[in-house]
Parts: sequence; C-alpha cells; structure tokens
Amino acid sequence: MLQPGLMMERSLLISDIIEHAAAQFGEVEVVSRETHGPLFRYTYAKCAARSRKLANALKALGLSAGSAVGSIAWNNHRHLEAYYAVSGSGMVIHTCNPRLHAQQLIYIINHAEDAVMLFDSTFAPLIKGIAQHCPKVKAWVCLSDAANMPSIEGVANVLCYEDLIAPHSEQFDWPQFDERSGAALCYTSGTTGNPKGALYSHRAIVLNAMSDCMVLSLSTKETVLPVVPMFHINAWCIPYATPMVGARLILPGPRLDGASLYELMEAEKVSISAGVPTIWLALMQHIEQNKLRFSTMRCTAVGGSAMPAALIAKFSDNYGVEVRHGWGMTETTAVATLGCLTPEDRQLPAPEQHALIAKQGKSVFGVEIKVVDESGATLPRDGVSQGELMVRGQWIVTGYYKGETSPLVDGWFPTGDIATIDAQGLMQIRDRAKDVIKTGGEWISSIDLENAAMGHPAVAMAAVIGVKHPKWDERPLLFIVRKPGQTLEREEILAFLTERVAKWWVPEDVVFLDALPVGGTGKVQKGDLRKQYGGVFA
Amino acid sequence: MLQPGLMMERSLLISDIIEHAAAQFGEVEVVSRETHGPLFRYTYAKCAARSRKLANALKALGLSAGSAVGSIAWNNHRHLEAYYAVSGSGMVIHTCNPRLHAQQLIYIINHAEDAVMLFDSTFAPLIKGIAQHCPKVKAWVCLSDAANMPSIEGVANVLCYEDLIAPHSEQFDWPQFDERSGAALCYTSGTTGNPKGALYSHRAIVLNAMSDCMVLSLSTKETVLPVVPMFHINAWCIPYATPMVGARLILPGPRLDGASLYELMEAEKVSISAGVPTIWLALMQHIEQNKLRFSTMRCTAVGGSAMPAALIAKFSDNYGVEVRHGWGMTETTAVATLGCLTPEDRQLPAPEQHALIAKQGKSVFGVEIKVVDESGATLPRDGVSQGELMVRGQWIVTGYYKGETSPLVDGWFPTGDIATIDAQGLMQIRDRAKDVIKTGGEWISSIDLENAAMGHPAVAMAAVIGVKHPKWDERPLLFIVRKPGQTLEREEILAFLTERVAKWWVPEDVVFLDALPVGGTGKVQKGDLRKQYGGVFA
Repeated sequence: MLQPGLMMERSLLISDIIEHAAAQFGEVEVVSRETHGPLFRYTYAKCAARSRKLANALKALGLSAGSAVGSIAWNNHRHLEAYYAVSGSGMVIHTCNPRLHAQQLIYIINHAEDAVMLFDSTFAPLIKGIAQHCPKVKAWVCLSDAANMPSIEGVANVLCYEDLIAPHSEQFDWPQFDERSGAALCYTSGTTGNPKGALYSHRAIVLNAMSDCMVLSLSTKETVLPVVPMFHINAWCIPYATPMVGARLILPGPRLDGASLYELMEAEKVSISAGVPTIWLALMQHIEQNKLRFSTMRCTAVGGSAMPAALIAKFSDNYGVEVRHGWGMTETTAVATLGCLTPEDRQLPAPEQHALIAKQGKSVFGVEIKVVDESGATLPRDGVSQGELMVRGQWIVTGYYKGETSPLVDGWFPTGDIATIDAQGLMQIRDRAKDVIKTGGEWISSIDLENAAMGHPAVAMAAVIGVKHPKWDERPLLFIVRKPGQTLEREEILAFLTERVAKWWVPEDVVFLDALPVGGTGKVQKGDLRKQYGGVFA
Repeated sequence: MLQPGLMMERSLLISDIIEHAAAQFGEVEVVSRETHGPLFRYTYAKCAARSRKLANALKALGLSAGSAVGSIAWNNHRHLEAYYAVSGSGMVIHTCNPRLHAQQLIYIINHAEDAVMLFDSTFAPLIKGIAQHCPKVKAWVCLSDAANMPSIEGVANVLCYEDLIAPHSEQFDWPQFDERSGAALCYTSGTTGNPKGALYSHRAIVLNAMSDCMVLSLSTKETVLPVVPMFHINAWCIPYATPMVGARLILPGPRLDGASLYELMEAEKVSISAGVPTIWLALMQHIEQNKLRFSTMRCTAVGGSAMPAALIAKFSDNYGVEVRHGWGMTETTAVATLGCLTPEDRQLPAPEQHALIAKQGKSVFGVEIKVVDESGATLPRDGVSQGELMVRGQWIVTGYYKGETSPLVDGWFPTGDIATIDAQGLMQIRDRAKDVIKTGGEWISSIDLENAAMGHPAVAMAAVIGVKHPKWDERPLLFIVRKPGQTLEREEILAFLTERVAKWWVPEDVVFLDALPVGGTGKVQKGDLRKQYGGVFA
C-alpha cells in the first residue's frame, strides 16, 4: 500500500444489505407467490426479522460459519430469507438448478458438502429420488408451512421451514468477517463433464448488486420482478439490489407462464423485469393473443441468450417497453455487460435502434472486456473483428470450487463466446465458440442465422448447428419448430433466408421438429442435436 | 477469512473510472466554463487522454507515488483531469478551499507537503501572497493556456498547464495498488484551531461515487451540473460518479451567480444539479425576477446547510424541480444521507411532502447512522429523541492526517450535529451541537428558529445564536438581513414568530444587519456573531 487513506475498514457484507433495507425501507413491500398458489406479502423489515430467525435456526441445527446450505427453490420470500440468513451467518448458500439431471444434482450436493437442503414442495419427488445418495445432508427443509407440506416417504429428517424457524428469536448479531469470504455457490450446467462450482464472495455480490442499482436506475420508484431464477447466478443479483435502494421486489414463485406473469405485473404495478428471451416470447404471445397492454412495465432486462430482433421491435415499438440486453454467465456472478441507448441513439430510426439493442451492451463499471484472436492477441474495437470474449473484474471467477487448475489466461477469464466490440464499447455475442460454423475457411454465426430464421412469421423456434461436410468442412443445418397451425416448408424458409443472408450462409438442409431439446437453464441443447444429426452430410 | 470466495482480487481504483468512461462512453460530453469566460467542451475519451498526459507531466516534474499535489481551483475540466491524473498515479490530490484565510492556506499546503500546486488564474493574487511561505512547493501550475496566463510577480516556478502537458504522451499505464491507499485530501475549515485533513482512500471514493449513481439514478439520460465545489469534499464525488454511467458532466467554472447558472442549465439541458442552499436561493431570485422557467432541470441535491422550507416549496411546487436534501461533512468523503420520497410519500398533501423533504434523508447503502445521548447510549428512532449524530461506514474517517488521536467513539465518528432519526430512518439535523441554545433546562434549535424567521416574506437571511442570560442560562438572539427595499422591524418579526413557535422559543431580541458573516464554505460564521454579541444580555 502507498500512504494509507484514513478511512474506516468495513467489510462489504450481504447481511448489511437486508439490515440497511430494514432500517431505511422497513415498510417497503416484498410480494411473493407461494408454491401452492396464493400471494404472500410482507416488508423488508419483516424479511430481515425472519432472516435472523432462520440464522438462529441454522445455528441450532449445528451449522456454523463455513457450512454449506443447498437450495432447490423458486423465486419466493423464503428463498430470499435463505439468501440473507445463510450468507449473513458466514455460511455458503448453494443454489441448485432443479432442471439438472438427478445424477448431476447428487454430484453437486455432495461436492458442495451441503449440510442442509432447502426445497420447495414442487421438488419433493426430486428430493425423494436423490436423498439417499446425499449422505452429508442432515436435514431436508421444505420451504412451506405445516399445512402445505408434501409427503416424502422414505426420506429421513424432512423438516417444515415455518416450524423450524418459529421458536427462534428475531434477534441475531450478524458476524463481521473478511468480505472476500465465500457467500454463494452456483454450478455451471456444463454439457460435458461434471458441473463446476463458482464460489461468489460477499464483496463480489455486494458490488454487483450496487452495479445493478446503477445500470437499472433502481430506486423507491421502481417495482422489480426478477423472472430470472434465484437458482441461476443469483437471479442476476436483483434480490440483493432492490433492498439497497428500497425498490419493491416481486417474486413470481413457480408460475412463469405468460398469463401468470402478465397478471402479476399488472396487479403489482411492476416497472422493471428481467429474464431469458423464452419467457418474454411466451409473455408477448399471451399479450398479443388477448389484445392486452402493459400499464406500468417500462423496462425488461434480457440475458441468457439473444432476444430475436422481431421480439425486440414488438416490445419497444408496440408496447413501449425498453429492452436491455445483457450478458453474463455463471463465472461472472451476474451482469457483466448491459445495453443502454444514449440520448443520441434514441434519435435514430427504429430499425437502427433495434440493431443496437440486439447487441449485448457495454461492460458495466467493475468489469472489463476484450476480444482476442486464436493467438491471444487483443483485437481492435471496430465492431467487426471477432474473437473470443475475455472478461476481468470485481466479480469474475479465478477458478472453480475445489478445482485444481485455473481457467484464467493472463488474468482474464476466457468465456468461450465469440464476440465483437465496437469503438463505443458495445459488445455483440456472435456465437458460442463451439457453435460457430466453419465453412470453406469462413465463419458463420449460428446465432445470426437463427435470428434471421426467427424473422419468418411462421417460425416459433429455430436452431442451427454446423454439420461435418466432405467438401466445405462444415455446413449449417437448420432446425425449425413451426408456430401452431402453420405449414411452412423447406423451400419457403430457404428462399426467405436467401434474401436475408450471404449465399454461403444459407443452410444446407432444414429439419422440422415438434420441439427443440432444452437444458437446465432454458437453452437449446445443441449437443443433443449434434449427436443425432452430426452425420447427415457425410 | 472464512472459506475464501474464488473471485478475482482487483482494487477499486480511481483510474478505472475514467478509463471505463473512455472505453464505454468515449463520445459523451464534458462541458466546462473556462476561468476567462468561454465554454470549453470535449469528451470523456479526450479527458482520459489529457489525464494521462498530465500523469506523465507530473512524473517528469519528479513526483512519484505518494506525492501530494495541491489545487486551488474552480469546477473545470483541468481540475477534473487533475482529479484523475494525480490519484490515478498513486499521488494524493489535496483540494484547497480558496476562501480560507491565507494563513490557513499556508498551513494546510505545508502540512500536506504539497509538491506542486495547481491554481486557477482567479487566485493568482492569493498565490502571490502565500508562495514564499510554502517552501516545499516546487512548481505553481496555472490551469490555463499560454494566452490567458496571469502575471504573478515575485513567484518562482510558475508554469502554464497547457505548456506543461503538451509535450507528453497520451499513453500512461496507471499503476495498480491497494485500494485503501490515499487518493485525495481535504481539510476541515474549522473555526477553532488548525484545519484538520481527511485523507480519502481510492476505495472510499469509488464506493461513494457508485452510491451517488445509485441514489441520484444517474445514467446516460442525465446531464449533471455540480455547483458544489470540487475543492469541497470532492464535489460530493459527482465528478467521479458521472463517468461511471456515462452521464454528461457540466462544470460551471467561476460563474456561480443565479443568472449564469440558469443560462448554463438551459443551454446545456442540465437535469440534475447539486449545491448549497445559498446557490439555489440566488438562482430562484433570478428566475422569479425574470419570470423564467426550467426546461430540463428535474432534481437538485442540497447539502451543506438546510434549505428553507419556503424555497423547497417554490422549487417543487412552482417549478417542478425535486429537492433532495442530503447531509455529509469533510469527514464523510461526500454524501452520507440523502432524502428520497417513496411513492406513498408522493401521495401526501404538498406541505407534508415539504416537511419530509426538509429533513436530511436516509443513510445511503454503505453508511450507518445513530443518535446518542450525552452518556453515549443509542436513542430510539422515533423522530423525536434528539442527540448527537454518530456515523459509521465505508467512507467515514478514522482520524485526521498526521493526527495523533482518534476522534472515534466505539468505532463511530461523532459528527457534532444534533439530530433525530425516525422509524423509517429519516434523519433531521436539529442543530450543530455548539449552536443549540439551552434555555431554562430546555433545548431550542437555532436552525428551526432560523427557518421560521426565513418564512417571513421580508427576510432575506436569518441567524440565531444563544446568548448568556442571567436567569435562563441562554436566550436566543435573532439576526435578520432584510430583502432589498423591505422595512421589517423588531416587533413585526417577533409577532410573526410568536404565531409559529413555542412561546419560550421567541427570541429575546433582534439585530438587523446588512449582511451575515460567511465563512469559507458559505456557512454563516456564528462564532463571529457570538464574539460580538455574546454579552448583550449580561
């Protein structure tokens, strides 16, 4: 250190967030959809009090600082209390994706050494199947009251959350410790090999939550509904961000269909939401079919994969909802880049604005990005040069939990995404490195091709993979799921694409499917498509 | 540390802020009033480039990490470059208040061991008077181009800023170091004893700037004009905050009168401003006299002292400008509390809203506040119990530069302000501890009494002090500056107050003055009034 500043040394801790909200925004509401249906509502003050009760209860179960507590749960108020109680106590909250295969769930629960598992009743059958394979779990706590407990035969030590916390005090002295301590653990849903865990520190989560407040302009004026799951990279840290500034928080529980989300957004006057494109697609279909309007929704943050241009146009032009494309991954805690139109951008014709919105945005303060070529050399920020996206910053992993090797390259995390960055820092994901199609020495972006196909009015979903080809190395193969009642055929979609992409991008063939294979985080599993169709051009 | 998180360890450094802006918001404008009059405009990219040139120039002058560089300057683009170049290089920028007495300036320059002094030409006469008493200053750099250099006879080593940086490269590798290192130094303008220095760390400033973005909802949509001086607790960290999110920054230079500010706000489409109440009073007088309206101004943050209720009402009701009262002091880096009306508050009748706005707001995330009685016991958050305000958090001092004793009490900084805090965390400054009037065993708030007097239409300014009284211990003495052309007399103002305050609060006597004594930071110097009038009731 140079000459040290004379400032108090205080850790950035997750417990500070909920106590700040309780003291300053104690009356601000949290609204939560119970797993069994009704809406539950309380305040940040009450949430803090119940988080302290849970902290006491976990201590009484014999857990201590450093213990891991797993969760398999929806976005709801008890899961929120676990976020604060577990991390605030110096333990680690391990959020599990219920869409993982049972074998993967067993693997990550044992790998994380979860001592207690919290689960929603929805997942009782899942728990029943895996419990006997998780010997270190000493209690399975259902996030429920006694009246709504599921029956789980054959699993020992099933507890009811409300009964568990009821006898405990609302007073708890949150421990003070180093802000670099682990707070939350989330495993990648890698399609090859075992899942790998990202162990987020208190500092990383607090800084990322501050960043969320900054880039989404959160305040007491906003009501925020994170559709992005709390089991998936901390719901982009939104459950940590809203209490910092006293924004209302709406948790949708298990009901993520278009009709339920629309109803909740209207009833609770939601102004900002966040989630993956498939959610917004379903929401838009519900709204269009029923000729509905949004009363208060003004902004939706989108990540996980790219939102199709046609959907961006509908949200922004027809419904006045600003789309903010973002990018992040398990290894980046939450949001690393987010789109923001400048006042000048907003003067552009709509199609040009949509083109800007379709990109993944600029790195937020605290994160740096660059793209590199195959030799690792940094490529120019010209919006054209594409290479692997590298990321560095306050909330980026250095490695994986219990991992032996570091994935870093010169201190940067290699994302496996192929991207461009322009002179204004605007980044665009062109493809996953493994999805890029190499044909005749040139690259084709599977994402761009999918977006072009999604522009056809009869297409519900589209996916493109590269398939080995004797002459061209690889050629694109297009998969189409038609909208209900539509009769789109091969020649028509190829003719449509011929008008929109370079000739050599036009897919070699088209396969029509009833549905695309979808993985744990809602992404199309191209690996499955490759396994089945990888030899069709041989 | 508990089990460490697996996150990159990167310091929060001030150099990251300007480089982030250059990379992501390179085309966003900074507009600056030159000391000699014209407006200068450039971009964050250009600001970063010139900051790097200055960093090279300082190095060439023989300065190195840990050196102190002083500034006596307005809010302008060269001062902004110094903020980044000096701190970014690992040096300490020592911002001096030009309104300090020459003896105090000499004291702090020598105490800080400033190796270089940066100054605006306005202050050339000041420099001429103090230079010979500051032997450690090896160069006096005027923030000017060659054409506008003042003549300063008798001072050796006067340099021209533009000539100094011109030969140097726009490339500079900002050093990486511990975020707790000192970055900026600001001395209190204490009325007793020598000024004391608060040495802010990089971490404190970066976190405070992030907090500014959060609580003021800064974004690319906003244009921000900090009237609060860059020589006064970092201009509330606004010059660090706007580049983080790409907000436009407007620096008003030396022209702080109502007409100039109004003109600049309109010409540059300013949406958010910040400063002390006297600035807003002058601005309001200009607007009312000339029957003007604001086109884009929507929010003004107010601190330093309390804005009179009548002025709050005018801004919010007549001109649609939201007033955000805040509180902070030299020892808190910048903003510690800020007002924010909730949606429910906005449903209240206007007078009730004004009463909430008149309070100093809630502690922002990163800062905790409490009020304590004379034994140090924490008082209830009931909005009534008043005691000394104590503050703790990420950007609060532990002590003073080269100081030998710590001012902290149980880890909290005692502010010397008397305040109340209500159940929602809303804090109200009732008085400076030393200004409270103790009469017949009860307390009278000099601030409340002044605000009541300011409500009279003929009153331009008011001040109240406690004066020793043979029977009542102390009794309030009121000082009034009449508005031009008004004929207000003693009996009328006392009758006015009798209707508005408790009987025993009514001042014992009234003194009419042409002006109140005002100190370095624009505050009324009650010490001067006490010296002159302290014996009048004896």
